[in-house]
Amino acid sequence: MEICILDDGIVPNAVKTLLERLKYDGIKKVTPDNISSDIGCIIVPGGDKGIRRYFRNPNVPPAPILGVSEGDAGGFLSQLDSKEIGLHIDRLHNTKNYNIVEIPRLKVIVDDKNSHIALNDAAVFSAKSATLIEYTLSVNKHEVWHDSGDGIIVSTPMGSTAYSMSTGGPVIFQGSDVFGIVPVNSQDVTRRPIVVPSSSKIEVSEIASHIRCDTILDGVDRLKVKESVKYSKFKSPAHIIRMEDNTTSVSAMIKKVHLAEDLLRMPPSSKLILKMLEYEGEMSQKELIAKTFLPARTVRIALTRLLEKGHIHRKVSILDSRQKIYSIS
Amino acid sequence: MEICILDDGIVPNAVKTLLERLKYDGIKKVTPDNISSDIGCIIVPGGDKGIRRYFRNPNVPPAPILGVSEGDAGGFLSQLDSKEIGLHIDRLHNTKNYNIVEIPRLKVIVDDKNSHIALNDAAVFSAKSATLIEYTLSVNKHEVWHDSGDGIIVSTPMGSTAYSMSTGGPVIFQGSDVFGIVPVNSQDVTRRPIVVPSSSKIEVSEIASHIRCDTILDGVDRLKVKESVKYSKFKSPAHIIRMEDNTTSVSAMIKKVHLAEDLLRMPPSSKLILKMLEYEGEMSQKELIAKTFLPARTVRIALTRLLEKGHIHRKVSILDSRQKIYSIS
Repeated sequence: MEICILDDGIVPNAVKTLLERLKYDGIKKVTPDNISSDIGCIIVPGGDKGIRRYFRNPNVPPAPILGVSEGDAGGFLSQLDSKEIGLHIDRLHNTKNYNIVEIPRLKVIVDDKNSHIALNDAAVFSAKSATLIEYTLSVNKHEVWHDSGDGIIVSTPMGSTAYSMSTGGPVIFQGSDVFGIVPVNSQDVTRRPIVVPSSSKIEVSEIASHIRCDTILDGVDRLKVKESVKYSKFKSPAHIIRMEDNTTSVSAMIKKVHLAEDLLRMPPSSKLILKMLEYEGEMSQKELIAKTFLPARTVRIALTRLLEKGHIHRKVSILDSRQKIYSIS
Repeated sequence: MEICILDDGIVPNAVKTLLERLKYDGIKKVTPDNISSDIGCIIVPGGDKGIRRYFRNPNVPPAPILGVSEGDAGGFLSQLDSKEIGLHIDRLHNTKNYNIVEIPRLKVIVDDKNSHIALNDAAVFSAKSATLIEYTLSVNKHEVWHDSGDGIIVSTPMGSTAYSMSTGGPVIFQGSDVFGIVPVNSQDVTRRPIVVPSSSKIEVSEIASHIRCDTILDGVDRLKVKESVKYSKFKSPAHIIRMEDNTTSVSAMIKKVHLAEDLLRMPPSSKLILKMLEYEGEMSQKELIAKTFLPARTVRIALTRLLEKGHIHRKVSILDSRQKIYSIS
């Protein structure tokens, strides 16, 4: 089976690291425009973001991808740290001892013209934050509501724990053959999150606002929209290799909820350290002790706990390899 | 095709009316224990409640049912008023010009013993209202959370606009192959409504409370529960005849939301009349004018609007057939 490493030009260091680690296995890199359809597996660096970027391209081959990340092994889509990749390459090549999961993609047509893909969600908002928009939501040509609010999010099950969840949407477990629709900050209290079969044709039309409106794909790509956005299930789903069973359909979706719980239940010292790292950027243990005025032991215990739970990362300092540098995930 | 009228002993007047209306068509009544498997269609009186009661019986044949109600033609499941049944019997018998929709049923096993069926939802609550319970929720044997709150509701898409919606659950459109799970008044702010594939095995276990806990099926049947309730998709769905397309999968589900909107947007006079009927019971137009101190014209317009929207019913007074009596739906 031919295996390649994707190089989309956005994470050159990650690609370089992967190529070095896998040079003895004869694995080469490909660019997004250059993926032949007979490739058996594509290694995609850049963590979950990299995978979402890859699958927003409608023309990728059906080959499954293996996501790798740098120090962020707790992703929903990418399970492996690039350091571990060497340990798994034999399984990819020979034993094929892994699962391939199918993740539905959302086809998004803006103003009846261009077609785009989203793996998580496609929202409609005013370009300027906290600005009202008006729109009409229809499902299978039936008007569901005409609303005014901050916007609306259509999400896949994968995306249900992302932006959609923050705005009050339900957690949709993987394998649910549905899409979620969540009105954001509606002026009307009767507007509810909706779940529809993934075979539905969803339309947000008659979009109006004082200023320009945008369609936002996976929280990253912003496209101008004048009148309407149409949503449906894209013909080919994303195929993702899962080397480990630690993130099954259930636990992957619940993980975020558990993380939020953890944060709520953490001791004040852990919360303080997390806030310091958030506001002041990455720091060593020494710096943290100095800045938080906490006992060294408290900081040490808190860091261990935060690392375990995946809230923070640890890397070796470039200046001093005995020093560990901590940063938030 | 043999057509029967169901007589479960609970709505004897409705059965009597139906039998009289359909006596020339040779349609006879059957009891729930007495339905032969070769019956082509069963007419079920008692509105949506009657239909839910019928389908909580696990042993009903796969024959489609036609729901009829008395003066409450706006049901989700029963579309016809018993007065209209005569007009439709030819379509049932001969032209077969109607749709049959398939509605999933929930299989509910209480304490690993008895198996029950619900069409809308099966909740777990303390027998006494506003009393905390503790429980563990698992999906496919994976623990999702351990929680304490008022309770938990597992619902079908049909039930998503019933109790589940009142407690913050999403509106799940018909045809979505999923169940909804909603924690009720959890003490933990991170608890979210969840949507899972209908193939999931849902379990509420380690149920504990100061006093007895109940499993409540479709908001009606209450069963004692000691330890656990298991939920799965029941092998045979409900088959329901829809004579009219007015309540398609989309509009049926959205109807409730629109009703709530209507209520919010109604002029004060309509709200006042609705409240009067709610608190004081059924009344004639004359009585309403006297009690509300509203102009006769205002009351008349409001009543027409409330009737149209299905918020109230009108029936002929038994004492004076020229008088119409109004009551809330």
